[in-house]
Order: sequence, then structure tokens, then C-alpha cells
Amino acid sequence: VTVQELDTPAVLVDLDALDRNIDRMARYCRERGLQLRPHTKTHKNAGIAQQQIDAGACGITVAKTGEAEVMAAAGIGDIMIAYPIATPSKAERVAELARSCRIRVSLDSEAAAECLSIAASKAGTEIGVLVEIDVGFGRCGVASPGESLALARRIRALQGLRFDGLMFYPGQIRKPSNEQTPMIEEVNRLLRSHYQVFADAGIGISTVSGGSTPTAFRSHEFEGVTEIRPGMYAFLDRNMLSIGVGEPADCAVSVLVTVVSNAVSGRAMVDGGSKTFSSDSALAPLTGFGSVLEAPEAELMGFSEEHGHLDVSGCARSPQVGERLRIIPNHVCATMNLHDRVWGHRGGVVERELTVDARGKLR
Amino acid sequence: VTVQELDTPAVLVDLDALDRNIDRMARYCRERGLQLRPHTKTHKNAGIAQQQIDAGACGITVAKTGEAEVMAAAGIGDIMIAYPIATPSKAERVAELARSCRIRVSLDSEAAAECLSIAASKAGTEIGVLVEIDVGFGRCGVASPGESLALARRIRALQGLRFDGLMFYPGQIRKPSNEQTPMIEEVNRLLRSHYQVFADAGIGISTVSGGSTPTAFRSHEFEGVTEIRPGMYAFLDRNMLSIGVGEPADCAVSVLVTVVSNAVSGRAMVDGGSKTFSSDSALAPLTGFGSVLEAPEAELMGFSEEHGHLDVSGCARSPQVGERLRIIPNHVCATMNLHDRVWGHRGGVVERELTVDARGKLR
Repeated sequence: VTVQELDTPAVLVDLDALDRNIDRMARYCRERGLQLRPHTKTHKNAGIAQQQIDAGACGITVAKTGEAEVMAAAGIGDIMIAYPIATPSKAERVAELARSCRIRVSLDSEAAAECLSIAASKAGTEIGVLVEIDVGFGRCGVASPGESLALARRIRALQGLRFDGLMFYPGQIRKPSNEQTPMIEEVNRLLRSHYQVFADAGIGISTVSGGSTPTAFRSHEFEGVTEIRPGMYAFLDRNMLSIGVGEPADCAVSVLVTVVSNAVSGRAMVDGGSKTFSSDSALAPLTGFGSVLEAPEAELMGFSEEHGHLDVSGCARSPQVGERLRIIPNHVCATMNLHDRVWGHRGGVVERELTVDARGKLR
Repeated sequence: VTVQELDTPAVLVDLDALDRNIDRMARYCRERGLQLRPHTKTHKNAGIAQQQIDAGACGITVAKTGEAEVMAAAGIGDIMIAYPIATPSKAERVAELARSCRIRVSLDSEAAAECLSIAASKAGTEIGVLVEIDVGFGRCGVASPGESLALARRIRALQGLRFDGLMFYPGQIRKPSNEQTPMIEEVNRLLRSHYQVFADAGIGISTVSGGSTPTAFRSHEFEGVTEIRPGMYAFLDRNMLSIGVGEPADCAVSVLVTVVSNAVSGRAMVDGGSKTFSSDSALAPLTGFGSVLEAPEAELMGFSEEHGHLDVSGCARSPQVGERLRIIPNHVCATMNLHDRVWGHRGGVVERELTVDARGKLR
């Protein structure tokens, strides 16, 4: 079966590009002495997670407890939940997982630590905890080295928890690599002050977990970082290409769609909309919702739920009803999450179906 | 079980509000002599579809063939696919469905009509076809009465197809009801010219299918309309409330979330992000991504995939980690589509789980 025989819309995964992306990141981490713990939110597929481990990753990262359960059931034995666990029922499930897996959780509050400690104590298991620090993204993370130390001390005092170190997410650094230097220096100033405070208190930090796809290949410049958690690097997408993370040929995912209408002048409608791609926007200054490989002049200007609205007024030839196009989505993680299965191909020949195993595991 | 005992994030459906919304629209259509064919894209649940039919709807509307299959398997016998079928494999599935269901499809091209005709001829079934006309939304639909007539003639000549009339979607009318008059008049001018051209040609139009939730209660003012296809009216959402479609108490859906972090000053993070709510934006001039029922001053300023970013700097009291909040989503259809199951409750007591049966049926 070739991809042109698939009904649409269909998410296509170029397995050759995926293999190259996985190998490139594994090699970089090996050469720099960094542990690689890929975030599986991007693909949510246990087989790709295992491929990443086989290539050298020390384990995986997930956001939700339900994702950890899916990956553990598939045989993955080292999982970091990079998300504060703040409900008792999730804490109980995490404590259960710790019976058979090495489990770590990041958090930034005593309330979350206490919630986890109660469950681990009851289950008689131990959960590794990383204190999340805010390095400028302004999402989660304690604000100062002093607060970080206080939380670490509290974690060390709580039954069932093991303080493993620090975690951060430099989500604000979404620039081309050559423009990242001042932002990395700012993160390093904050990291150094943390290390100093912990050293003064005599508390060891075994892990410093950082990284993201935009900063991944500069991770060795983040002082003291021992592991990184990039996710999108496996697939890449329109937003990542726009900031220079890889070349177009490195982008492993496209969405195959069919033109279903071109009755409105200057427009062509394709059979994928926000329920196929997600409504995730483009990183400024980019606009629009995707890049059409077969018609780069066509602008994907908007979505209805099941229609992609192409402005084809700039095209030499208007796409015809029934014609197939491949579109690179703005944000591949959001796109993958809308599909139950996607198709892995090499050079257009379908090799295997990939199930999005952890799709919808929101709890 | 009360909703406060559910783990989060969890979509809550207020069944009392749902019942009222379904009854109100059914009553309006009965009083005005309009057929009601609710679009099930909003809830994607076969039980709610059946409830709409039991209340008086003549059948249902879907966008995708896979949605039609799910609803037909659940026993729904009259389905309109308000979407051009433009791939042979979908046409074959539609032709199969026509063995056991009354099936109609809307389209705007000869290519789509021919694709459907080939499949219906092969299966020996008959498919009803409505010609979609563009009344100003600029998505699908032929542009002029002349083109509409030409396509209707082609449909009448094709084996396996039955020309049933005209279909339109007034998606551009997203204003409060009292501001819709000039736009409705413009649609009526176009509808009248279609009726004239078809009458002159001696071709009968048995169905004129229109309607949307924002225009639903003015559907009797659209000349010649025989049926309407509103979807969101069953649930409503933040965008619909913002243009005055119903009162806050009519909004049947909220998303229960838990605060997982408030470490960053002026912020609180909740455990639902774009993978729980969708990234669908607010209708201007509204901004933000949802309304927090328990803290109206909190602004849901953005999403990560699994984090909702609340700006709580305007709140008298910062929400604490572990605290639960209910949030009205911008666009309920996109939110529902991200969940496998949701919880129906009355007054906060969970009555039943509702499966999102047609979720992910993109083909």
C-alpha cells in the first residue's frame, strides 16, 4: 500500500526521517555526556518510545499519570512524570506504578509533595521527586533558590519521597539557536545560584533535568544539566522548522488531505480542519495553520472543525476536487493527539500503522 | 458520586440544561413548522442524538462518513452528511449505509456527485443529494443560481442519486440575534433568486436545509427553509453566550480542573490545557480561552498542552494547589472531541457517563 491509496485525512509519519531524528539526538547526548529522556507527549506511541530507549535514552518523560500507565504497561521501566500530581487518586496510581517502575515526579509545592507522600507511604513505595524551578517561562516552578531549598528539605522529610534534584523547562526560548545565547546565560545565572544554596546546605543534587526541542542541541551549555527532555525533535513541525530546528526533510509528519470543494472563488477546502490538525497557532512572525507541500503558494488561512480553508488565489492552478495534498501542521503534538492511528511509511510505501497509545489519557 | 469526587480534568454535562436546550429548540421548530436535524458534531453521542429525535427531530446531521456509521450502528435511521464526499472509499461506505438508512449528502461539484453516483450505482442504492450554495460564509457552496441549477441537472442525470434540494450554512452570521436582520435579508435575496431559477426550469426543490445555532431562533425568517441543522444549541459554550445565544444557566458543559501550581506570582496553573479544551479562540471582542465559574476575575490567558495558564492577579484570593475550578470552554465541539467520555450530572450528582461515540471519526 502506498500513502496515495490511504483514505483522508491521514497522518503520515516518514519513518526514515524519524529514525534520523532519533539517532541525531541520541548521538548528541552521548557525545556530550547528557542523559536523554524524551517527552513522549509528541507521539504517544509505545513503540517509538522503545525505539528512543534502544537508541540510548535512559527512560521517557510524560505529562499525565494515564500516559505513564500506558507506557509502563508496554514495558517501559523508567518514567518521569514532568507534571505536579495534585489529586489523591492520581497520587495513588503513581504510587502503584512505583512498584514496577522507576518513577519520578516534578512539582513546585508542599501541597503536591504531601499528596504524593501520603499515597507512597500507604503503598509502601518510593517516588523520586524533582523540584521544578521557574527559569523564565512563568508556568510552573518555584521562584528563588531559597524556596527551592525549603521545598527540597520538606521533600526529604516526607515519607515515601526521595529528593532527586531539580527540573526546569526553558519554554520561553523559542528562537533560532544562534539567538539563544543571552537567554541561556540568564538561565545559567539562576542555576548557579541554586547550586550554591544547595551546596551551602549540604544537600546533593543528583539530577538536573532540563531541555526542550528548540534548545536541545545547546543543552551542554546549560550549566550542571544532567538530562534533557525534548519531545518534538522526533517529528518536528512547521513551528519548529520556522525557528530553524532541522531542515524541511527532517520533518517526519505531514497530514494527507483531499480537496473536497473549490466552488468559492480563490478558495479550496480540504477534508481536515481543527479536529484533524488542532487550532494551534503559528509562532510569530509566521501566520496560517500549515504549509502545503504540493502548493507552497496556497495559504492555509483558517479551519472549520472539518474543513481546512485554503486561499489559492496565489496559485498558478487551482487544486481540483479529489486532488490530494500533504500539509505540515503548526504543532505536531496537538495534531497527533487528535488521531487514534497514523501511518508510518518509507518513501511513500506504508510500512506499518502506529497507534496513538496514550491519546486522550488526560488524567 | 458527586462531580466533586471525579478526578480531573473532567468534562461535566448538566443534563437538566441539556434537556431544556433540546426541548426549547424542538418546540420552536414545531411551532414554526420547521424540520429539525441537529448536527451531532457537538456531542458525538448516540444517546443524545436519540434524545433529540425523541423530542421531535426528523433525523440528524453529521460531517463525516465515520460519524454517520457510528450513528447508524446505534439505530439512527435518517442521516444527512453535510459534507462533500470526494473519495471513492467514502462514497462506497455511504452507498452501503444507504441500504439501511435514509442518507443524504450535500455537495457543490460535479466531481463529488460523480464519485457518489459511481458508488451508489455499484451498490444498487439511492443517495439523496442537496446542492450546497454559498450564502456568504465563503467556505463551500456554488456561487450563483445558474451554477446551482446546472449542478442539480447533472445530479438528476446521474444514476443512484436523487436531487432533494438546496443546503446552506450561514456561518458568517455570528452576531447577537437583534443585529442579524440585514444579513438575513441578504441571504433571502440569494435564496429567492435560486427559487426563481429552479421554478423557471420546472425543477422542484423538496428540501431547503439551513440554520446554525446563532441564527436558529430566526430560522423562520429565512425564506423557503424547510429544515435547520443547529448543533451547539444542545450544549452552548463561551462563544455562544458571548453573542447572546442563551443565558449562562443554559450552558450545559463545563470542564472541572484542579489547580496544580501557583508558584509563579500572579499565576495559577490548572490541569487542563489545549489537549483538554482545544486551542479554539474566542469570538472577538472576547479574549482568552475560557470563563472560570468560581473565579470570574481569573483570566484563562493561554494554554500549554496540559496546563491552563490562569492570570489570577485580579483575584482577591489566589487559588490554592488542589482546589477545583469549573471552566466554560470557548468552543464546546472542539472540547468534546478531545475526550473519550464525559460525565452527565443533575445538580452536581453524577447520573451517567456519556461516551463520545463518534470522536476521532475523521474519515
